[in-house]
Amino acid sequence: MARAYNFNAGPAAMPLAVLERAQSELVDLGGFGMSVMEMSHRSKEFQAIIDGAEAGIRRLMGIPEEYAVLFLQGGASLQFAMIPMNLRRPGKSADYVDTGSWASKAIKEARITGATNVAWSGKGDNYMRIPKAGELKLTPDAEYLHICTNETIGGIRWMQFPEISAPLVADMSSEILSRTVDVNRFAVIYAGAQKNLGPSGLAIVIMRKDLIDRAPETVPIFLRYSTHLADGSMYNTPNTWGVYMLKLTCDWVESQGGVAAIQKLNEKKAGKIYEVLDSSNFWRSPVEKESRSIMNVVWRLETETLEEQFLAQAKKAGFVGLKGHRSVGGIRASIYNAVPLDAVDALTSFMKDFEKKNG
Amino acid sequence: MARAYNFNAGPAAMPLAVLERAQSELVDLGGFGMSVMEMSHRSKEFQAIIDGAEAGIRRLMGIPEEYAVLFLQGGASLQFAMIPMNLRRPGKSADYVDTGSWASKAIKEARITGATNVAWSGKGDNYMRIPKAGELKLTPDAEYLHICTNETIGGIRWMQFPEISAPLVADMSSEILSRTVDVNRFAVIYAGAQKNLGPSGLAIVIMRKDLIDRAPETVPIFLRYSTHLADGSMYNTPNTWGVYMLKLTCDWVESQGGVAAIQKLNEKKAGKIYEVLDSSNFWRSPVEKESRSIMNVVWRLETETLEEQFLAQAKKAGFVGLKGHRSVGGIRASIYNAVPLDAVDALTSFMKDFEKKNG
Repeated sequence: MARAYNFNAGPAAMPLAVLERAQSELVDLGGFGMSVMEMSHRSKEFQAIIDGAEAGIRRLMGIPEEYAVLFLQGGASLQFAMIPMNLRRPGKSADYVDTGSWASKAIKEARITGATNVAWSGKGDNYMRIPKAGELKLTPDAEYLHICTNETIGGIRWMQFPEISAPLVADMSSEILSRTVDVNRFAVIYAGAQKNLGPSGLAIVIMRKDLIDRAPETVPIFLRYSTHLADGSMYNTPNTWGVYMLKLTCDWVESQGGVAAIQKLNEKKAGKIYEVLDSSNFWRSPVEKESRSIMNVVWRLETETLEEQFLAQAKKAGFVGLKGHRSVGGIRASIYNAVPLDAVDALTSFMKDFEKKNG
Repeated sequence: MARAYNFNAGPAAMPLAVLERAQSELVDLGGFGMSVMEMSHRSKEFQAIIDGAEAGIRRLMGIPEEYAVLFLQGGASLQFAMIPMNLRRPGKSADYVDTGSWASKAIKEARITGATNVAWSGKGDNYMRIPKAGELKLTPDAEYLHICTNETIGGIRWMQFPEISAPLVADMSSEILSRTVDVNRFAVIYAGAQKNLGPSGLAIVIMRKDLIDRAPETVPIFLRYSTHLADGSMYNTPNTWGVYMLKLTCDWVESQGGVAAIQKLNEKKAGKIYEVLDSSNFWRSPVEKESRSIMNVVWRLETETLEEQFLAQAKKAGFVGLKGHRSVGGIRASIYNAVPLDAVDALTSFMKDFEKKNG
């Protein structure tokens, strides 16, 4: 049973060890005569799992006690709505940086419920870069500044995070656990699980506790962070399978040496692909060098026909998920934590071969 | 590897055949070299799965073409907020029937965002029954009437659904696919998956299409049904594992003869427990006979001490999940579709034994 070379953008490759562990205990977890999916979320067995998931993510990211960790549903997309509903009080405004598709989606949602200032936009430049320090036009007294730290579709990421006085809110869906970050720099970090944390259907929110009670009383109960904090992420039944998989994934990251070690490997993996892209004019990276993502590497070829040939031959050779997002076209390799080095090596070999034949 | 006698209220027992199938293909689905959790939700492989899930639920419930089927996240609890936000237009009100914990939770949430009329409440009676026809105090021109067709905690269910002119909205979380219903009687049916449909973290909404576009523009994009309909439940990444498990569960229900056959078995299972409860004064069913649930059977013993003894001995004998909900106490056996007849037989034997020793 060969593993595919899986470069999907999310849902994406998961560690084989995690999948095999989940498989081995799918019907019977720990001798309890049932699957984790059949356990009550109120049981002490599941409580140990969700506690373990929280402890794992706290340890790996170095999350201080003053921050809550919530396991929610609805992905990052529900957070696009919940963040402004909870953190932007009536009459106040929030700043957003528009770095691409995901930041734009967050902005569009924020506009529905209140004043939303776009502090910088890369749209005119086809989202080829992250703004430099000093380029942001911030609102005085903004409730927060929202950024998407890694744009899955555009393939750019914030190398340095902005130094500002307002609370910094970050969508880290496509790079959480891929690099070390100082959580203290952020007021909120949130992420959909389906790239580096586990399966889709689960979202994690890491939030400074002093911000949690800001929601006006007009916000539906389910959509208040305070509701979920008060019940330990069990106001309603959580995605128990997702939480279990997230715990196994944290264990795996720890077994790999933690986030710093994973980051080194991620930089090596991305470096290998960028090295090919930079080696000749056959390849074109549409992204500014200083803004290059190490999770989603995007590139173009001279013509769309050539890109189609590349994608068709790559697919035939067993590479999955290399097609760029339908909104931008081109080619994209998503190389999350669980994509092994040998898959990247296979891809770069294939690229060099393709260049030889078509260059 | 013995299976536990699992009477959990949800997450709950799942069919062994479904678990074994999921286990066998967890690491590699269909020879694609990856888990279903690693597949792109935009892939044709996953599209076939979600299409299959929708077709399965449509076939099993006989859902007409004029109804949309949506796969969402956030459980029934998010629906408590979305239903009034979408279906109760500004200045209008909605009717709710308060039959227990879940209906109350829906009412509490509906009150946050607009005028909410409680058409009947069983609270004064400890929620021991469903109202009779004619007892409902409906608002003229209400946008809809909301009911919870089966109260998981109280153990009561609507045997006959109310005949009204307003659209009927039903939370069927704890009895969907357990009995045949005429979908045409309803404007909306919704359910969290974690009782009869699959794992937690997935919700299904079956909604008359003409109602879907009612949301005012002040409703966040993510919280509009129209958003999810327009993108085939893929406005954001769906819970792909949950959808896959729901499809397998639908296949299993079909293999058992469909909903009518499952209903017969469910009535038999529930009948066996109620027969014991009715056989002597040792047991006390706190629920009106005409309102008895066939999914959640609740009962009391003469003293709380005796109840504790029952629960402790049952636990020792391998029965899981028999403790009544912490809000009401007592004993509860949840006997969803996947709880096999032999588990019920083991329980009734144990009950009779316990009565002999303590009666």
